[in-house]
Amino acid sequence: MRPYETDPARIYAQSFATVRAEARLDRFPEDLRPMVIRLIHACGMVEIADRLAFSAGAMATGRAALAAGAPVLCDCEMVAAGIIRRHLPDTEVLVTLNDAAVPEMAHDLGTTRSAAAVDLWREKIKGAVVAVGNAPTALFHLLERLDAGWPKPALILGFPVGFVGAAESKAELAGDPRGCDFVALRGRKGGSAMASAAVNALANGISEEKA
Amino acid sequence: MRPYETDPARIYAQSFATVRAEARLDRFPEDLRPMVIRLIHACGMVEIADRLAFSAGAMATGRAALAAGAPVLCDCEMVAAGIIRRHLPDTEVLVTLNDAAVPEMAHDLGTTRSAAAVDLWREKIKGAVVAVGNAPTALFHLLERLDAGWPKPALILGFPVGFVGAAESKAELAGDPRGCDFVALRGRKGGSAMASAAVNALANGISEEKA
Repeated sequence: MRPYETDPARIYAQSFATVRAEARLDRFPEDLRPMVIRLIHACGMVEIADRLAFSAGAMATGRAALAAGAPVLCDCEMVAAGIIRRHLPDTEVLVTLNDAAVPEMAHDLGTTRSAAAVDLWREKIKGAVVAVGNAPTALFHLLERLDAGWPKPALILGFPVGFVGAAESKAELAGDPRGCDFVALRGRKGGSAMASAAVNALANGISEEKA
Repeated sequence: MRPYETDPARIYAQSFATVRAEARLDRFPEDLRPMVIRLIHACGMVEIADRLAFSAGAMATGRAALAAGAPVLCDCEMVAAGIIRRHLPDTEVLVTLNDAAVPEMAHDLGTTRSAAAVDLWREKIKGAVVAVGNAPTALFHLLERLDAGWPKPALILGFPVGFVGAAESKAELAGDPRGCDFVALRGRKGGSAMASAAVNALANGISEEKA
């Protein structure tokens, strides 16, 4: 059995040092870099730094929203499960995907359950932080609702993953963020761990790095 | 707004068709290919097919374990959250990471909480399916316990992610799986979505593909 590092503080420090050494971070606003580092840390891929799209105010807007008590709206349970709740003890983290009404809504709308579940965000969307870590159709559907006049969320964290619609939905967001702040990973890559990491970065930056 | 696919069956079919077109699957045993496809689908990266390590009996052993009522032991809540429970309605899915005893155990052992939490698997480990989707130290610690004489799990799904210990812990598993069946993604990449996908593949293959 080979030796391995067991000290949490040294693991974090070494991880973040590797990210800083390998990833190009200088194109990001200073306040967004902790999120970029956390995103890379969550997936083990420094190269995602080169494909992140973002608005300049994303971090400040997201932090202000959470500080003001805004909810976090997630497209799936995995995103919610990855949010470190001790950093957001009073924040509502909402997942509507498994609401009993969703299958029928999806059928009636002719879309996926993930997209239909977005309609249940209507009363919470204004000023919210949206974290999409799985379903391209959830992000597309949200953008359609915004085009139809919904109130705007503060920040959209766009990390749907996969081969059908993921790259396209994030390109649609990055090309026209509908007046919202946003961070999104272009292309097929993404996932719930990245979406959670983005929320965690809003909540706490990289405080573990200093542990 | 660009048009996008909203039909779940077509999304699945198109996704799996893309995976089959782009990924090299022929080196895998026939019964393992549905898992490989699901793993790729979970992360949007066909290239992971080239870095998967596995034992020839992994799929049959894992399916038999679940069919016999074995529990699934996960290193974090996100892995558990990604397991499709309707395919495993009677299976115990256990996460010990947030057990109240773990912080003190970690302190006493001089290791991470993720590693210490593995010690709470002791009574469940024999014949179990282990799904590691986050912490390299959890996988290392399990291998140490097996070296020390613990009963063996049936199958180890090794998908810890990151820059410190992830590649090393999976190399240790693949180099000497301690008599267990295993599937692991070599290198830094991994994550809870892949670990969940591997469990879901055991439970249901790729039935959605035929939906």
